Amino acid sequence: LHEEDSDRVYDLVEPLHPADIADLFELVDERERLTLARSIRDLMGVEVIAEMNDWVREALMEALPADVVAEIAGELDTDDAVAMLEDLDEEDQQAVLAEMEPEDRAAIESALSYPDESAGRMMSRDHVAVPETMTVGDLIDYLREHRELPTEFWEVFCVDPMHRPVGTCALSWILRCPRNIPLYDVMARDQTLIPADMDQEEVALRFQKYALISAAVVDKSGRLIGQITVDDIVHIIQEEAGEDALLLSGAGDGDINEPIRDAYSARVRWLIANLLTATLASSVIAMFEDTISRMVALATLMPIVAGLGGNAGTQTLAVTVRALATNQLTASNAWRAVRRELSIALLNGCTVAVVIGIAVSLIFGNVILGLVIALAMMTNILIAGMAGVFVPLTLERLKADPAIASSIFVTMTTDSMGFLVFLGLATVSGLVG
Amino acid sequence: LHEEDSDRVYDLVEPLHPADIADLFELVDERERLTLARSIRDLMGVEVIAEMNDWVREALMEALPADVVAEIAGELDTDDAVAMLEDLDEEDQQAVLAEMEPEDRAAIESALSYPDESAGRMMSRDHVAVPETMTVGDLIDYLREHRELPTEFWEVFCVDPMHRPVGTCALSWILRCPRNIPLYDVMARDQTLIPADMDQEEVALRFQKYALISAAVVDKSGRLIGQITVDDIVHIIQEEAGEDALLLSGAGDGDINEPIRDAYSARVRWLIANLLTATLASSVIAMFEDTISRMVALATLMPIVAGLGGNAGTQTLAVTVRALATNQLTASNAWRAVRRELSIALLNGCTVAVVIGIAVSLIFGNVILGLVIALAMMTNILIAGMAGVFVPLTLERLKADPAIASSIFVTMTTDSMGFLVFLGLATVSGLVG
Repeated sequence: LHEEDSDRVYDLVEPLHPADIADLFELVDERERLTLARSIRDLMGVEVIAEMNDWVREALMEALPADVVAEIAGELDTDDAVAMLEDLDEEDQQAVLAEMEPEDRAAIESALSYPDESAGRMMSRDHVAVPETMTVGDLIDYLREHRELPTEFWEVFCVDPMHRPVGTCALSWILRCPRNIPLYDVMARDQTLIPADMDQEEVALRFQKYALISAAVVDKSGRLIGQITVDDIVHIIQEEAGEDALLLSGAGDGDINEPIRDAYSARVRWLIANLLTATLASSVIAMFEDTISRMVALATLMPIVAGLGGNAGTQTLAVTVRALATNQLTASNAWRAVRRELSIALLNGCTVAVVIGIAVSLIFGNVILGLVIALAMMTNILIAGMAGVFVPLTLERLKADPAIASSIFVTMTTDSMGFLVFLGLATVSGLVG
Repeated sequence: LHEEDSDRVYDLVEPLHPADIADLFELVDERERLTLARSIRDLMGVEVIAEMNDWVREALMEALPADVVAEIAGELDTDDAVAMLEDLDEEDQQAVLAEMEPEDRAAIESALSYPDESAGRMMSRDHVAVPETMTVGDLIDYLREHRELPTEFWEVFCVDPMHRPVGTCALSWILRCPRNIPLYDVMARDQTLIPADMDQEEVALRFQKYALISAAVVDKSGRLIGQITVDDIVHIIQEEAGEDALLLSGAGDGDINEPIRDAYSARVRWLIANLLTATLASSVIAMFEDTISRMVALATLMPIVAGLGGNAGTQTLAVTVRALATNQLTASNAWRAVRRELSIALLNGCTVAVVIGIAVSLIFGNVILGLVIALAMMTNILIAGMAGVFVPLTLERLKADPAIASSIFVTMTTDSMGFLVFLGLATVSGLVG
């Protein structure tokens, strides 16, 4: 599949679905992407561009002149055009907007005026809104006659004279009702309205909770200004839910198409922050240099106490962050979650303490050392459980994203406390004489 | 909101959406759930039960007699009834099935015959299938006359005389076409068919990739047997994408409603596995007891080298696991991903090595110690980058889930190698004389 013979490439790519062509761009090497785009120029429909990975698309768009990008943006649906343009830097964005038709430009500029990652950015302005007094028959005739209406929609919104949504009709209900029934007898009045400035994560949770296919987006005065359909939400749910693992590890965006420079800058910042917290753990060890020099076996065993505590803390953390992200954990059941995590920590702590206590007593032939490590392990796993649930709860209460900073604090706690409790107990127990 | 006065509770709960009532069950204490269910008995519609968290529902269902569960299952859509019954243990399941209407029982038994988490389990048998030769007008009349058809559907499937799907019509296309047009001129022939034994994760990726609203499910001979709609997929995308963070940390299912016993058993197994790998790191340290006893500062610094390596490895791991889960990373671009991760590791390694090298040289007034730790850090971050990308790729190739076991192997590698390289270099460099 190399670009020597562009006709052969064209023949191979032609039968593919636009989403598959978009994926193809991710698979080929960065330097070959432009060559590929040139060989299959007339297959590069707007669907292909809409489906592309953000990073891949951004790089391609930056390589194209502003008027070509403007032409592509004009053909895309508003929401896809916005997704494409919001990634460009300010200057390129202005250049592209200047080249666009006034009407498209106005739509995009108005979408860009909403906050990043808000409903206003992702909504499509195309929607079908009709008065609730219309009958099913009139609606069907209206849809047949008005060619300029969107081609893909799943629900029709009924609005009052002020253009405020009053009900929603699924197309299946419309199809199954006799022509003379008015829409106010068909529509569901119980609807989920999305304010234009709502965060996309919240929008996704609403769609999921109420099993929505589409939803009306309203402005501050309650007027219907667009709709969001579930196919746009699916990407967001995927991204937001998958983000936790990346954020907890400090891997930033974590997309394999992100430029190396950006990935490096996100990850190295995290490593340096971890370096600083690691020095805290080191200084705890330094306090016990005398104890260690009298019994070097302690240096051998101390990473086990700190490491297992870190593992236990990460488990609790992952569960808590997930429950917070899905709104399963709120202020009203926080104490129950805390009690639950501490019970699990107690059970885990006892089990691990017994195993390591017996193993160390036997291997080192030293029961006191076994007791010291068992007690230290028990304590550190309990501390880990507390840190794993309290750190994210506190960050959430402080309106910070618990997935971003929690794991640094939790590992710092389990490392330092692991060393402190283990070496401290070894010192005071008279183990090292 | 306590259950003293069940009438007041009823009045408070009555105006809520079924999904909100289902959430309420998660928020109240376990012991109060049955009381709550009793107070609002006639609000406990099937929608509430379908929306409940799996664990909460399972506990409630186990508390109810088989004939009541059977009655509830009979009212639910097949897919929701299957989701409810598959969690029960074999004996309860049989008892409930025995109480059901023969027709419902046959539908559920046939769904349960497909593998766990497959398309056959989650599909709904209710769907609209018509011959492609029907006209738009005839279809509308057919839908109006046949009351037994499903109430919620978004696409109509066209089938051949063997009941094999040949095309799909979105309802909006049907509504917008004149009555005399035959369906074969309206339908999209390019459709995504889902084999009944396809894994739900794969189904979710298809829906996401091709922006599907619903899709036909076919059996081995290609006959249409049901449909899957996007609202069922949204939960799966959410679960599958969020699972990575939990699996990487060894927290098992990680749902805060999971019984403590199950959570303990999942997590303690992981901690014991980590205990075993931690002893490997310990035995590496034990090899250098003599070196440490001659320079206790090494014991202070060694956790930094191992810990930062662990962090860097976890970052690479999170990115790789995510890319594998979303099919962004496949055999054809694996080498590019490896090169990318190693480049980032090289940059991270150099940066962290310079910082720690200078800091240690200054703090300990020992340039050789600074050089040793810088070189060890550099090496360990490179090793971490390799482990973080090769371990999940290898597990994937061995058909194991890379999210489950990767992190144990990666931390084991970064811990052992961190200690080995740092203490080894300290020994051979002549640092400890």
